[in-house]
Amino acid sequence: MGGDYGPSVTVPAALAILERHQDIRLVLVGDEATLTQALKTAGAGTDNRLTLQPATQVVDMDEAPSQALRYKKDSSMRVAIDQVKSGNADACVSAGNTGALMATARYVLKTLPGIDRPAICTTIPCLGGRFRMLDLGANVDCTAEHLFQFAVMGSVLVEASGDSEQPRVGLLNLGEEEIKGNDQVKQAAQLLQDSDLHYVGYVEGDRMFKNIADLVVCDGFTGNVALKSSEGVAAMISQYLREEFQRNLLTRAAAVVALPVLRALRRRLDPRNYNGASLLGLRGVVVKSHGGADQTAFEQALEKGVFEAREAIPHRIDERLGEVFAGERPA
Amino acid sequence: MGGDYGPSVTVPAALAILERHQDIRLVLVGDEATLTQALKTAGAGTDNRLTLQPATQVVDMDEAPSQALRYKKDSSMRVAIDQVKSGNADACVSAGNTGALMATARYVLKTLPGIDRPAICTTIPCLGGRFRMLDLGANVDCTAEHLFQFAVMGSVLVEASGDSEQPRVGLLNLGEEEIKGNDQVKQAAQLLQDSDLHYVGYVEGDRMFKNIADLVVCDGFTGNVALKSSEGVAAMISQYLREEFQRNLLTRAAAVVALPVLRALRRRLDPRNYNGASLLGLRGVVVKSHGGADQTAFEQALEKGVFEAREAIPHRIDERLGEVFAGERPA
Repeated sequence: MGGDYGPSVTVPAALAILERHQDIRLVLVGDEATLTQALKTAGAGTDNRLTLQPATQVVDMDEAPSQALRYKKDSSMRVAIDQVKSGNADACVSAGNTGALMATARYVLKTLPGIDRPAICTTIPCLGGRFRMLDLGANVDCTAEHLFQFAVMGSVLVEASGDSEQPRVGLLNLGEEEIKGNDQVKQAAQLLQDSDLHYVGYVEGDRMFKNIADLVVCDGFTGNVALKSSEGVAAMISQYLREEFQRNLLTRAAAVVALPVLRALRRRLDPRNYNGASLLGLRGVVVKSHGGADQTAFEQALEKGVFEAREAIPHRIDERLGEVFAGERPA
Repeated sequence: MGGDYGPSVTVPAALAILERHQDIRLVLVGDEATLTQALKTAGAGTDNRLTLQPATQVVDMDEAPSQALRYKKDSSMRVAIDQVKSGNADACVSAGNTGALMATARYVLKTLPGIDRPAICTTIPCLGGRFRMLDLGANVDCTAEHLFQFAVMGSVLVEASGDSEQPRVGLLNLGEEEIKGNDQVKQAAQLLQDSDLHYVGYVEGDRMFKNIADLVVCDGFTGNVALKSSEGVAAMISQYLREEFQRNLLTRAAAVVALPVLRALRRRLDPRNYNGASLLGLRGVVVKSHGGADQTAFEQALEKGVFEAREAIPHRIDERLGEVFAGERPA
């Protein structure tokens, strides 16, 4: 029910995914009448792989997480996460309020043993490839131990994705020399150096786009600012490009000629292809779609949910944590 | 003497500035033989507005600031800052080691009363304009009071530049709702709200490129990551654009047609036009040029030095601090 467009986007995307993967089941959670209508509008037939799970409430996009947790026990978000908890679903995908989703998922599903806090991880394009980055906003302040846990969780996700068998792990910092950074980052560097992760050192904001790490680890404040700044610059350049091509008759003619090239560029950088952030560290799969996702983008988020459920990412993270902490794992 | 190219870039840029501003004097600081040769190569005649100040040492680009401060007392950097201290120069412009420049400037010139730490401030393009951002890396950890001091200093610079009479001051944060952010940011928001600065609230990384603030304030860690991430994305898009236009004969033909448009875009975003970061909070003008600056870029940094000396920015910041702290200013 969540996101800026609600079921008009999520329902058609769900139907497309169901069609694409013949071995999955899909549970739509939300207001029954609205969902039934959305299914009708989308021209859905009866399908025993598709079920409806009613929920009478909706968490607002700007609602405080604590409010949602307390007063919205029958929200589509809460009921969807409950489905994962009860084992009726293997993944929950939502375009709703990020803070409320994180708080509810953490409350209902709990974190894995050894994980203090879940983190938000997403995929970002870079020269000749892509990398993953976490945390992107769940944790404003992080200790070195948190950053280390993020590195373990993110590495498992990169490995499962097939991008790298030994993911290169970098720590986001304001310089690449050893003396640079705050205490948390310096201590996290030590923890990573002493671990069996493939730690490649500090990574600066510009260098992460040069394909020097498969995983960039940072606190949620810095990660959020870095990701959004990147999106902001890309949007500005795109707007400037449009303006320059619309300047006069000559530039408009040039635009027509350059159109296939500009389209190819757009395809390469289309944020919709990267939609879907993983909430890692929970005892279950939860994927957050961008609130403004259209159908194509929401399908990508659903694909991530399918992928993480198939690969049993939480279980694999749990196993890896067992190895990392070798019997000394905190509960 | 500093930067990646040394006098082969800085000397021709200095001569160009001297030509452009008939009322300024210029002191070139560094190895006498090297500078004399560079002047000769650049075809400089005798000019009583141009003097040479010998310095026998050079601070390396990767030298630790503490080392530079201790063992390089006759470096071009130190001697140039000494020129400002003694009153023989009104501004120091350097393309050298940022950390060493900041440490030396702070040691020699001292901070203004009421300023705990100097900060690095630069100009960044945004939709339909530009904004300034500080700190960009001088201060890894900042208290709310530091952030507030940055806001005061940055506001003076924006006002003097003529961009805005009442600069809109925003705090960089991972959300725009009041509950978002870490303790320092939340407390700084309170200080700004209670001040007579034109505080416009929290600014997210993407929104700062939409021209919603004239000044974006943050700690040096976050600011550095945000700025470099932005530069990294812009470089990646530029590289992708080149690749797409070079893909085949057709796209190469399109590139020829689109060339004037692409050139116009480049002009609008050319980082060389924004070169030169101000070290604010000192009792003197110090401007840091990008180490990789070419002549055009270094001229911009020199222009900033001329501007800040003419506008007596340190004096204006000092006056404003007097108003802000109204008699209760710490020494």
